[in-house]
Parts: sequence; C-alpha cells; structure tokens
Amino acid sequence: MKLEGKVVVAQGGGPTAVINQSLVGVVLESRKFTQVTRVYGAINGVSGIINKNFIDLTQETTHNLEQVADTPSSALFSTRDKPDEKYCREIFSVLKTHDVRYFFYIGGNDSSDTVRIVNEEAKKADYEFRAIHIPKTIDNDLVLNDHTPGYGSAARFVAQAFMGANLDNRALPGVYIGVVMGRHAGFLTAASVLAQKYPDDGPHLIYLPEKAFHRDKFLSDVKKIYDNYGRCVIAVSEGIIDDKGIPIITKLTQNVEHDAHGNVQLSGSGMLGDLLSDLVKKQLSIKRVRSDTFGYLQRSFLGCVSDVDQHEAREVGEKAAHYAIWHNLDGSISIQRSGYYSVDYKLQNLYDIAGKTRHMDDSFINSEGNGVTDDFIFYVRPLVGSGLPTAHRLRAPKVDKLIH
Amino acid sequence: MKLEGKVVVAQGGGPTAVINQSLVGVVLESRKFTQVTRVYGAINGVSGIINKNFIDLTQETTHNLEQVADTPSSALFSTRDKPDEKYCREIFSVLKTHDVRYFFYIGGNDSSDTVRIVNEEAKKADYEFRAIHIPKTIDNDLVLNDHTPGYGSAARFVAQAFMGANLDNRALPGVYIGVVMGRHAGFLTAASVLAQKYPDDGPHLIYLPEKAFHRDKFLSDVKKIYDNYGRCVIAVSEGIIDDKGIPIITKLTQNVEHDAHGNVQLSGSGMLGDLLSDLVKKQLSIKRVRSDTFGYLQRSFLGCVSDVDQHEAREVGEKAAHYAIWHNLDGSISIQRSGYYSVDYKLQNLYDIAGKTRHMDDSFINSEGNGVTDDFIFYVRPLVGSGLPTAHRLRAPKVDKLIH
Repeated sequence: MKLEGKVVVAQGGGPTAVINQSLVGVVLESRKFTQVTRVYGAINGVSGIINKNFIDLTQETTHNLEQVADTPSSALFSTRDKPDEKYCREIFSVLKTHDVRYFFYIGGNDSSDTVRIVNEEAKKADYEFRAIHIPKTIDNDLVLNDHTPGYGSAARFVAQAFMGANLDNRALPGVYIGVVMGRHAGFLTAASVLAQKYPDDGPHLIYLPEKAFHRDKFLSDVKKIYDNYGRCVIAVSEGIIDDKGIPIITKLTQNVEHDAHGNVQLSGSGMLGDLLSDLVKKQLSIKRVRSDTFGYLQRSFLGCVSDVDQHEAREVGEKAAHYAIWHNLDGSISIQRSGYYSVDYKLQNLYDIAGKTRHMDDSFINSEGNGVTDDFIFYVRPLVGSGLPTAHRLRAPKVDKLIH
Repeated sequence: MKLEGKVVVAQGGGPTAVINQSLVGVVLESRKFTQVTRVYGAINGVSGIINKNFIDLTQETTHNLEQVADTPSSALFSTRDKPDEKYCREIFSVLKTHDVRYFFYIGGNDSSDTVRIVNEEAKKADYEFRAIHIPKTIDNDLVLNDHTPGYGSAARFVAQAFMGANLDNRALPGVYIGVVMGRHAGFLTAASVLAQKYPDDGPHLIYLPEKAFHRDKFLSDVKKIYDNYGRCVIAVSEGIIDDKGIPIITKLTQNVEHDAHGNVQLSGSGMLGDLLSDLVKKQLSIKRVRSDTFGYLQRSFLGCVSDVDQHEAREVGEKAAHYAIWHNLDGSISIQRSGYYSVDYKLQNLYDIAGKTRHMDDSFINSEGNGVTDDFIFYVRPLVGSGLPTAHRLRAPKVDKLIH
C-alpha cells in the first residue's frame, strides 16, 4: 500500500559546495511519486520545522532547482541547533500536524541523530512515517561511508589553494603555514597532498588531529625542510591537539572563544596560524614566515567544485527518496566504493551512524605523523573530480656564468 | 639597422595568476627576431642578474612555455630587492658583459623605476640598449593604465570568495569580515561588489584605504545592516587607515611586524580581521562574528583566472618585444580601454610611471565611504572575464502556518 502524505526536507550544519545537489535530488525525485501530496522545504533546518517555517517546493520550477543545485551553501539555510528529545518530540508533532510522512534531513553526525530520535517518536505514536538521513560534511567524518558528499569539493579547494601557495612560496621563499578546517578528522587537511607534483613541492609537512602535535618535533621538522629547500610549506588542521587531547590553540594562547557546546572556536579566526608563525619566527629565526587560514572559503567558494562530488551528492538525495518512498525504509544513506573509480549506495541503520566520528586510518598517515601515505593519495584522488588544474615549470638549461 | 644581441627577461614583486603569460609573450615573440641571439631568463628578478643566474629560454619548448603561461606565480621566481643606483649600475654591468641589448622587467611600480635607472646607465655608457617595463600588479595601482595585468584574476577570486561567503552567511547568519590585499589602493577589495546579485546580498559594506576609517562610523554601519538583514558581510582592505594616515591595524594592537622598508606587515597574518571581529563582538554584542583573511590565495590560487586578464597579460609581453625590437623604443607598456570591452596598448615614458601610485577615483566610491558606485561596477565587470559563476536562490512560495 502506498503511504500518502507530504515530504519535508531540511539542511543542517555547515554548508558545503554540493549540499543543494542533495536537496534537489530529493525534491525532483519525490515529485515523481503520486503518493507525495506536497514537497516542503524547512527554512533553517530543524528550527524551521519547530517554527512551521516551510516553503512549498512542489511549486518551484525544475530549471530553478537545477540552478540552485549548482549553487554552494544551504539554499534552505541552516541551523546549529542540536535537538534533544524534547526538541525532537516537537519536530515530530509539527510534522504530524502537517501530514508529513517522509522526512529527509541533509547533514552530518548531529543531523543523523536527530533523524533517529524523530523516527522513534513516530514509532512510539504508531504513526506511519519514513525518516532518512542524507550525508553531508566537508570533514568526511561519518562512519560506514567511503567518503561523504561535500568532502570532494572542499578537498579540491584545499588542493588548489596549496598548489598556488606552493608556487608563491617558490617565487618568494620562506615558511608558509596554511590552516585547514577539521576539528577531529584530518581528511580535509590531508587533501593538501594533491598539490605535490614535483619532488620538492609543498606541502612538505602535514599535521592532523589524529596524531599528537609536539611543539619541538614541529620545529625540528620545519628546520629540516627549510635547511634542505630554503623554504617550507605546511598544512595544519585547525583541530591539532597534544598527546593529552588538549587543542594546541589553547596551549599557545589564553584568548580562545568557546561556543554554546563548550567547544573551542577554531574557524573564523586567524589565531592558530598566527601563533604557529610566531613560534617559527622566534624559535628558528626565520624572517619570512606567513600564515593563511582558509576559513569559510574552503566550504563555500563559488567556482571550485568536484564533478564527482556533485553527482554523488545528487544521487544520495535521489536514493533517499527511493528508499523511503519505494521501499518504505528508514536509515542513513552511505557511499560505498565499488571500483576505481565508481560508487554504490547502501542504507545504514541510523543507530550505527549517529554520534560517531570517523578518523583517518593509520594507513593514511606516515610513521612520523607529519605527512600522508600513497594509500591516502590513491584514496582521495578520484574524489576531487576531473580537470584538476596542475602547475608547470620551466625546464630551460642554466647559462654558464661569465666573469666580468 | 638591426640591434643584435641578447634578451633578458625577469619578474619582480608579488606573483600574480597571469604573470607567466607576460613572460611567455616576451619569450615567444623575441624568439622570432633574427637579431635576437639568445633569450635569457633571470632567476629571482634583478638579484638573479646581479648573481648572473640565468636560464636559456631559447632552449625551452614552445609547448612547455604555453603550459607555464597557464601556471600562476612567477616561473622565474621573484625578489623583494628594490635596487638603488649602485645596484642598477651592477645590473647594467652584468647585462653589458653578456651582450644583452634588450631588457624586459615584469613588475609593479618599483620594477618600472629599476628599468628607468638601468636604462639611464646604458645611455651614460653610450651602450645601445632597450629597456621595457611590463606592468603587473594585483593592486591595480599603476598610473596611466586603465588597469593592470594580474588585477582581473585576483578581482575574480575576491568576487567568487564573497559570493560564497555571502551564501554561507545567509545560511548561518552573523557578521562576516573578509580582509583583502591592498596597502594603498582599494581596487581589489572593491571588486567584492561583484558578489552582489540580489538586493540583500553582501558585501553590505566595503572599506578602502582611500577613505579614512572611523571606528565609530564602522560600528554604526555594521549595526544598521545587522538590524536590517540580521546579518552583515563586510569587505575590508588590509591597508585601511585613519584620517591621519595611520594604519588601523597599528591602532588596534601593538603587535605589528615591520618589513625592511619600515612598512607594517599586513599580509600573511589574520590579525586585522581578528581585531575587527573583537571590536564588533564587544561593542555591538553580536555573538556570531567571523573573519577570514584571504591572504596569498587571492594572488596564487590555482584554477581561478580571468580569460581577459590572461590574454592582456600575454599581449603586454608581446607588445614589449615589438616596441623594443621592431621600434627601438624604451618605456612602460600600458593598457588603454578602447571600447566596452576592448583594449589597446600604449608605450609610456618610464618617468611618468615609476614611483607613482594610482588610487581609486572618487567617482568609484560612494559618498559615505563604505561602498562603491555603479561606475566602479561598470569599470570592473569586464576585467574579471567570461563565465563568472553566479548564485541562485529558491523562489518557492511560503506555506501558511498550521496551528496544532
């Protein structure tokens, strides 16, 4: 029997370059089913549900949906609300009032947990209801996924940024530190490795939250590279920690801000980069030390996207509609690698995804903890898509010096 | 009579996305002339000449030159040396020893002054010698030019960055401050205006070095926008100054670094953005305030380039070879706008370019000094090239709220 009713789709957490692909995948696919009476979008994630703030995406043109799909950042806007049980009951109550039978939430870890609780509320109320979590995160930190939509495009931005930074640093040598997003997982920072083409290309050092960061080891690493090449390009995760799990930024300064959840504010500030710069300048007496913090550009820059990521983000949205509406299933859509390179999608149990964080495998990190392995390069390369730009060098012979 | 001898080409100052187009324009064009015995590239700008550090670009393949042309940052590497008269005499002496008759220096203000002095040395020595300055600067601050090669691509990066930042800020509202390069001229920061498509799009406020920055006016500007839209996106030049010409960064903190020329270090640090963030947070009690400093990405990011800028950068290189080798002339190549949109090139006297800084016309800045005019948009739009990405929005109707 067909379950007739409305669809609600919402977007949560940090925006990505392809999150609207998933939205449009859900909307276009849902609109094909006769049992779907309306497709609503909730404005500002779950808080839009609570506030009954919906738009009717059944009345959106296909052309405009396609254009929105190509636009980065959450077209339905987002929220940082992390619903507790009471909040989830309220979500369910509003959805039920609106005769919503299908709920799709595009987001990361926290969003999958919300989907799980809302789904439980529906079961308790004996209300026929399908809820699917659609993965999205530039951090690539969802378990049971080969990778997540949003990661490939952000990884491409980071790779292209380091390609340029490496060239700039060759032309005007010194130490360059690029700070990349990633509180607990180093996947995005690790993608900087794709900037290496020639053997002396940067990033020469890569520091990830998965391995404890030691101030003295860092300084000796930098010195070694600088002595060898006369320059050094470094990629650092904003979330690097010491061996007790204390964020390095709090060890270098007292002036850190905390969010509502007690987390140290890492993004939207150049502080970590500046503090590491000072350290290198003072301890190694290197004059030209510069740092850039890639900040929000890496997740929202218009015009740097992985086509592979785009297509997969679209497909996870479509698959969500299929699982829920064709198959009457709940769960979390996951990406499985099925070839080099191809993927397939698998529905995971919400309990197995929610609240868990994936970290980089040990096989992806070098033994010194200051770089990544060929395994990781093999893993990440297809995700950043086709047409990745590449740098070229002059190869003209040197001229013999004349005496004058 | 044909002046037979070698060509030397060098690159100075900060790299751009298209500086190698000019290099390759000079090299490919010079290689066509039978009186040119060799085309040398000096490694690391003028310091490479002093150190007799040349490569023989006559022995570089055309294909590789074309690939290098498409690669950002100075393929011959750069230098921050600002030669005095003694240094220039040394340059001339080395060039003469190597039987160099044509000298092309790709760079900004300082480079044009170097070309001027070296040329005078040749005249004093009664040595037949042609010297041409080829313009390059993302700052767009050379006088007698409609605009300069390198600016269009950097402007495109800034526009695309603010398009994304604006979308991100719509999804997760707050105050966002993007700090853009530009010590004395605001052209690059002003290009952020191209991110505006819909009437409420950011950047809502643009602050330039041309207009004095007042702390209180800034805060009231931000408050007004924030009260109106619930969010605010701000573009700020790193070089903003107060009405006495004192850099704002030195007014907000004592911890600034100075370079060898006594200039405050503005780039390669997130300090100005962080200080302005703190100001907004504390004075306006706005919780979510974030800043990004675009840093070196804006001049070297691989994969964001203006095709118009590429072609013009190539042509100024070619024209330099024509003026020097066909016409036996010295000077500085300038870009003149000849249509909407087309350009032509004109040789300027080196005395008229060297050591002068162009600022934004008053007609480009709004009366409040916190934004730019349509005149500026009209001016800048063609420079960022074709295929500029654009953001799209959902237009679906709101759903009436149900009571439950």
